[in-house]
This record gives sequence, C-alpha cells and structure tokens, in this order.
Amino acid sequence: MARRTRSGRKAQSGPFLQIGHYPAQLRHPFAPQDYLNPDAIEDIHDTALRVLENLGIKVLLPEAVDLLRKAGATQHDDMVMIGRDMVQAALETAPKSFPLMAANREKSLLIEPAMMIFSPGAGCPNATDRLRGRRPGDKESYEEALKLHQSFDVIHLVGPSAEPQDIPAHLRHYTFMQSQIGLTDKPVFVYARGQAQVEESFDMIRLGLNLTDKEFVATPWTKTVINTNSPRQLDRPMSRGIIDFARHGQILVITPFCLAGAMAPITVAGALVLQHAEALAGITLAQIVRPGAPCVYGAFGSNVDMKSGAPAFGTPEHMQMTLGSGQLARHIGLPWRSAAGTAANLADAQAAGETQQSLWAALNANATMTFHAAGWLEGGLTFGYEKFINDIEALQSIAHMVKRPDMDQSALGYDAIEEVQPGGHFFAAAQTMQRYQTAFYPPLVADLANFGTWTENGSITAEDRATKIWQTILAEFKPPKGSEEREGRLLDYIARAREKGGAPIMD
Amino acid sequence: MARRTRSGRKAQSGPFLQIGHYPAQLRHPFAPQDYLNPDAIEDIHDTALRVLENLGIKVLLPEAVDLLRKAGATQHDDMVMIGRDMVQAALETAPKSFPLMAANREKSLLIEPAMMIFSPGAGCPNATDRLRGRRPGDKESYEEALKLHQSFDVIHLVGPSAEPQDIPAHLRHYTFMQSQIGLTDKPVFVYARGQAQVEESFDMIRLGLNLTDKEFVATPWTKTVINTNSPRQLDRPMSRGIIDFARHGQILVITPFCLAGAMAPITVAGALVLQHAEALAGITLAQIVRPGAPCVYGAFGSNVDMKSGAPAFGTPEHMQMTLGSGQLARHIGLPWRSAAGTAANLADAQAAGETQQSLWAALNANATMTFHAAGWLEGGLTFGYEKFINDIEALQSIAHMVKRPDMDQSALGYDAIEEVQPGGHFFAAAQTMQRYQTAFYPPLVADLANFGTWTENGSITAEDRATKIWQTILAEFKPPKGSEEREGRLLDYIARAREKGGAPIMD
Repeated sequence: MARRTRSGRKAQSGPFLQIGHYPAQLRHPFAPQDYLNPDAIEDIHDTALRVLENLGIKVLLPEAVDLLRKAGATQHDDMVMIGRDMVQAALETAPKSFPLMAANREKSLLIEPAMMIFSPGAGCPNATDRLRGRRPGDKESYEEALKLHQSFDVIHLVGPSAEPQDIPAHLRHYTFMQSQIGLTDKPVFVYARGQAQVEESFDMIRLGLNLTDKEFVATPWTKTVINTNSPRQLDRPMSRGIIDFARHGQILVITPFCLAGAMAPITVAGALVLQHAEALAGITLAQIVRPGAPCVYGAFGSNVDMKSGAPAFGTPEHMQMTLGSGQLARHIGLPWRSAAGTAANLADAQAAGETQQSLWAALNANATMTFHAAGWLEGGLTFGYEKFINDIEALQSIAHMVKRPDMDQSALGYDAIEEVQPGGHFFAAAQTMQRYQTAFYPPLVADLANFGTWTENGSITAEDRATKIWQTILAEFKPPKGSEEREGRLLDYIARAREKGGAPIMD
Repeated sequence: MARRTRSGRKAQSGPFLQIGHYPAQLRHPFAPQDYLNPDAIEDIHDTALRVLENLGIKVLLPEAVDLLRKAGATQHDDMVMIGRDMVQAALETAPKSFPLMAANREKSLLIEPAMMIFSPGAGCPNATDRLRGRRPGDKESYEEALKLHQSFDVIHLVGPSAEPQDIPAHLRHYTFMQSQIGLTDKPVFVYARGQAQVEESFDMIRLGLNLTDKEFVATPWTKTVINTNSPRQLDRPMSRGIIDFARHGQILVITPFCLAGAMAPITVAGALVLQHAEALAGITLAQIVRPGAPCVYGAFGSNVDMKSGAPAFGTPEHMQMTLGSGQLARHIGLPWRSAAGTAANLADAQAAGETQQSLWAALNANATMTFHAAGWLEGGLTFGYEKFINDIEALQSIAHMVKRPDMDQSALGYDAIEEVQPGGHFFAAAQTMQRYQTAFYPPLVADLANFGTWTENGSITAEDRATKIWQTILAEFKPPKGSEEREGRLLDYIARAREKGGAPIMD
C-alpha cells in the first residue's frame, strides 16, 4: 500500500491522494424506480400535448416559427401551436442512442438510457475556494475547473464550471474552445450564444480534433444545453441553437428549468407538465430541422422557497420531479439529463445532504446524464473547489458500485472462515493477504482517523481537507497526451478571428 | 405562513422551527433493488449453511448449547454444529410480520418487510455538541437524546444514544427504563445485559405501561439488539438475551456486526456469508426456545481501512453489504435491520455524505429498520446533537417522498399554465394561492438564503445552525401525555430494587 500519487510519484505532503480509476463509461447499478403511478405519467404526457396544441409556445426567432409552421404548426398572435401528430413524428425520428465523441476516443460516450454519465457543476458566474474566497469567474478559475474535470474519471463531460468574465463576451468562445481542447481530452461543450459563435466553435472542434466537415456532421462531437424560458417561451439564441446544432448533427440537451412555484406551477405534477411540454417543443423543432438529430430530454426541476422566492435544490420536490422525469423520459424512450444541486453557500453538511439527495434521486430515476454533479453551490451561482472534491467522493463511491463484488468460491470465503477461529480476526487470513491492497474503495477526502488522532491533526473538516487535494491536483496537472498538438492547430484560426473582431453573441 | 413553532407559540428567536409531521409509520417509497445476482444470493445462503453445519459456532452459555443440542445440533469440542434442517425449521416458525407496541398505541409499529422504520444513533459511549464539547455519555445526555427522539415523527424507536456512564452498571437499567417511559411514548429498548437486568426491565415495562403478564407476553412491547461476536461466537449475555427475549415473546434484532477485513472476511461475499451464518444461528436458537419468537434479521456490515484497521462507514462496501443483506432478508422472508453510519468526527460534509450513502443503500435495499439513522458519529463512539438535527433533515426529506404528489386534474395545472403567459411567473397564479402554504417540504436546518444574506447573517454552517435547533427543542420539551402517570408507576419498584442492591450485568 505505497503512498503514491496518481502520477506514480510519492506524495510530498498533504493528504494522500487516492484518485479512483474507473471505466470511461458507467452503466447504472440500479433499476429505475416507478415512483409515480404509470397512469399519472400518461396524464402528464397528455396534458403537455394539450398545452402545446391548445395554448402553444412563444417562439421568438422567426426562422424557427417558419420551420414549425411549415411542419404543420399554427400561429395565433405570437403563439405557436404544435399538434400532437408533430410531436409524435418527432419522437419517431429522435434517436434513442447516439455517441458523443471525445478527442481521446477511449473517452467517447454512448448516450442511451441505461448509461450513467456525470457532468460537473457548470454555468456559474462565480468561483470560490478556501484560499482565495468567492470571486467572479475568470479565465483562471475556468481553466482550473477544467483541470479538475480532466483529473477524475467519474467526470465524463467537461463543462464551463466558472464563466470567464474577464474575457469579453464576443471573444469568450475562443477561450472556451482553446482551453477545453488544450487541457482536456473528454467531450467538449459549446454554448448556444448565437450562430456566429456556434459556427466558429464548430470550426475550432474540427480543427483541433482534425476532422473533415463530413466527419464532424456524421457524428456528435459536442453538446449544448438549450434552456427554454419557462413558462412557454423559446428565445432567439436558444431557437437558433436548436437549428444550428440539429443541422450539424450535434447534441441538444433540451432542458426546461422548471422551478415549481416560480416559473412553473406550484405542483410537482404541473411543473412536470410544463417541463414536458417545453422539452417536447424543442425536440420537435430539432427533428423538423433534421430528422434524427441527437436530442437529450432535459429535466431540471425543483421548487422555490415560497417565503423568499429563493430556489431550493435537493429537496423532496426536486427528488420527486427527478423521479417523474425519469419515467417521462422512459415513456418517450429518449436518453435524458437530470441535475444534482444545492442551495448551500459552502461545502457543509447542507451542501452534501442536498447534493446527495438529488444525486440519489437521479440514480433511482436512471438519469442518463446528471449535470452539476460536482462543485455546484448557491443554486448554481458559484463553482466551489472544495465542493467539487467532496462531490467526487460521492461519485466515485457510486462508480465503485457499478462493478458488482466478486461472488466466486474464493470470494465467498468458506476457507477464510474456516481458517479464523472464534475470537480471532481476519487481518492475517490468507484471503486477506491476497486481497488487502485493492479490497476496498480508497477514500479521496474522508478521514477515517479516530477522534484523538483527528484532533491531534488539527480537527480539519472535510471542506478544509479538500483544499489540499485540489491544490495538489492543480500543482501536478499535466495536459493529456495529444492536447498540445490539438490546441496548436487552433492558434492561427483564433488569432485571425480575433483580428477580425471576434463574433457577437445573439440577444 | 405564520412563523410558529411546533407547539403553536411564536418563535421567540433563533431559527424558525419547522418540524415535519408524518404518519407514525412509513412504507418504503422505492422498490427493493436486486443489486447482486440472484444466484449469488443462493450461494451466500448455501455457504452460510455449510459454515453452520461443518464449521459451527462457539456458544458460550451452556444452557444455549443444551437447547441447540436437544434440537439436533452436534457438539465438537467447544463448537456447535447446526444442521440446515434446523435452520430451515426455524425459518418456518419465525414470523414474517409482528407488531411492536408503544405506550402511545398510535406509535405502535408493524414490523414487516415493506415498512421503513428509523431508529436513532445508539450505543455511543460519548456525546458531543457545539456548546459543551465531547464528553462521556451521562444521564443528562442520555435523557436529552430521548427528548430529541421523542420530538421528531421520523424517529420511530427510541434508543440509548448516549450511555449514561455516570450511573453504575448494576443500576443503569433503572435509568434506561424510567427515562424512556417518563420522556417518550414510542417503543422502548432493553439491553440484553443478563437475565437479572432483562427481567427487571420487563417488570418495569409491565408496570409503566400497565400490562398484565399475559398481555406482555402475548405481544412484543420492546426489542433488543443481539450482536454476535464475529467471527462465529455467541457470548453469554447475548445467548442469555436470545433465550430471555424469545421466552417472553419480545423482539430480537439479531445483528452480526461484520466489518470486512477485520472480524469478517475481506470480501463483501465472505462478510455476507459470515453475517448470514451468525444471524441464522441466532434466529435458530430463538425459534428453538419459542417457535414464533419475533426475530429481525440483523445486518450491519461495512469495511475497515486496511492501513489503520479503523472502521469505515457509508463506503461503497457498506452500501454493497446493505444491498446484499436486503436480498438475503428477502430470500429468507424476514423483516430486517440495516444501519446508516459515518466515521466522521463532526457533522461536516463527510458525515453527511457517508450517512446519506448508507441511508440510501438501506432505502434501495428496503431495510425494515434502519438503525443509527440520526446522530451517529465516529463510527458509533459519539452521539452528536448537531449531527442528529442534520440527519433529521434527510429522514424528513425521505418521509416526505412516501406520500406521492397529487396527480389529479387540478394538480396537473393546465389552467395554471393557461393563466400565466410566456415571460410571466406563477407566484400569483390561482393554483399557487390555493396551495402555497403547504406546497413544499419546509426545511429544518437548510438555509436557502443567498450568499449576500447568508454572509450578513454570519456565514453560519449547517452544523452551527443545528445548535440553536436542538437547544430550542430541549428548552420547549414537554413529556408526552400520560408519561408522568406511567413513570409514576415505576417509582416504588425502582426504589425497592435499588435498596436491594440493583441487578448485576452478566459477563
């Protein structure tokens, strides 16, 4: 049991870094739960279809309205009514399974219902850690987060954990792509902030990953999240994103963000109806643009505190919506995304409890992708370094369970039980000697010392222990094999594009 | 949304106490998971039977050995070999369902597989809180813990959270019973510390709850935990406890405490074999004493840290053993007990994470009873007041999920969705106005304030917020209706028994 770091060198100081190694892709260890009555799932689906056909959805991009109308939708004032026949047709062409390629092909993912994919906390305007405090996200925190994502097998997708606000918006997509391609070899994300930035981002993926146009369009190489503007609205950049990603065969994660009581009905049932209607509208538009466009049914539902209006996460209602969303996704047969989350302001017991609860709901609902699975704080306003490290412990624990324990004769241990007499112990049993080095999950943050030792060592909490871990990881970080070459292929393109003034984001 | 405490008075200061009210008994919201292959469960069961018939178990109480021999067991030196026919006969007489009565009959429990029963952290030599620090358990902390148990509906059984070490051992059972009967109206526990204390404890239950001998023996009114001395040993007080509880028809929770790598084989499979063999031996002895004696299949398996030998809890192996134990319990058809746990030394993110993980494993395994579900720290060495409060949040969140959300037409919210236009919000919708007061789970400890407000309020962590909560609960505590009368009936008995010198514990 040598105390070695992941890179094979001896740990100099600080915590013993034991980063678990897991397969590039995991399958759910648990069967999905049918928490809601199957009749209720039918009712939610049907009510969502009634919302789309009778009440409609407001679509702010004329091109998207035209596409929907040509496919049979009707327009009343500024509302587009989408018939259930159109939705049904879309569900028939939407693929149930598709790949998401990575620079390192071994980290490419198959996106289909039984898979269990974890994505880091993302979209946070701020970053925080115990050394530097809470501050607006910048290029440094954006890149540090990418290094953390790259360093753990249980993070399958990289994401924009902290927004690099020090980069002007019209140039930010260059940083997004260059840093992802230069620091990681996992599937990358692109923000749908208008056609100009999306097309340049696609250019950079093609260049960096050395793909022909044909290769790029033939297979998904990236994904974006489309957030509808609940209730019942699809804004210009989001509509544009659906069209552009669908045309290029890239993955759309179409995610209404339905907070019951605020932008969605106060009931779990009603919030699920609204979520379902909006997600189906987005999926329908994508399938009109390109039948077979890869779409992930997106669900991110929770509730607000009715006293303050503050969003809450990891609550019973969050879990109920997640469980119901899984049933709705299975009802329509698509892979789907869920989200973990917490409203806590630091990586304390509340943060861990809420995140675990939303994570376990996602597991019991068999979420294909669980977003914000590590590092999300303050309902997404802040990416927390210590929170990230603590969440990795939970994800690794779950990943460990994917592999069933050995159940052969040797593991059943009749001989070991015979060897150890009553009153004895198994520390020196032959079975133990053969297996002790790899028998158990090695904790990343958990301190198993007893109270005396722990006190002598300074009574350090899990949050504070995590500080040394991320520091060590960042200090030892080496970009993955091939990334320098991939990044190198982008440099001229980015320099020229910057010279031309960058690319605007869409309002 | 008036800010009222549970007792109906306005909260004076400190956190707004929102203690959830739940039915006295909960059923599992989730289907049990078949995590291990059914063949593996057969193999574990069969290997455990081979252990019992070929290797045997050491039983230190001659009366227990005699009972087993008369029922067909053979003795080789100091080992008792139990044939699979004996085990099979025991499983045929062990009841699959039985009640556990409480002073308040509305809090009586039905013990059967689909039930979800939570028991507090118990058996801790120490207690800790943020005000008074960590100290040896005493009568004060024992009674304070009972008050906390009594105050939350999601704690179904009271337990000896902190051991009252300031009471001499030969008198301690009087304190155990008087405080439980005087401060709570839920089902009580008795420690199996020898026949003298057990019989006096039974006397006190009969007296306090005003039961005839016949009434007491006809129905279970209390339970005890029988911990086998793994590996393969049943000591004198535990053997004695099985005999005495079975004879009186009281509940035996027969629980091998199998820590893989230490007192059990290092493999999950092997540790489950040992657990299963020992539990079956105990159940068999109980059924020999009294066919139909109420037995709960006990499982408390985790692993140790192989570098230090320190017990670990909430680990992947703990979860795997819990999931496998649920399958084994279903295989033999008995209600069963699991345990949550953590090795953490304070109520931080590690404590919450480990406890949640072991709790969710118990949920997915459909544990009938989950012990140590609130307040357990340091692998059981300490009862933590703040940990207890934070764990209650998790238990209430799960209890909330037992009740499925409304799925009728009004809840589906088509009208509400029609009422709120795109770009609008649901805060003032008619559906919201009808439901906002009771729509969502009200958090006990979680602080949903944003970062600015939370910082202005002093950046208080979940652990520190919990301090005010338990303080308020203890300050406002009133013993339940009828408890004064019940306790009053014990006073003469206890005074006389003390005068006679108490009752010894068994070695």
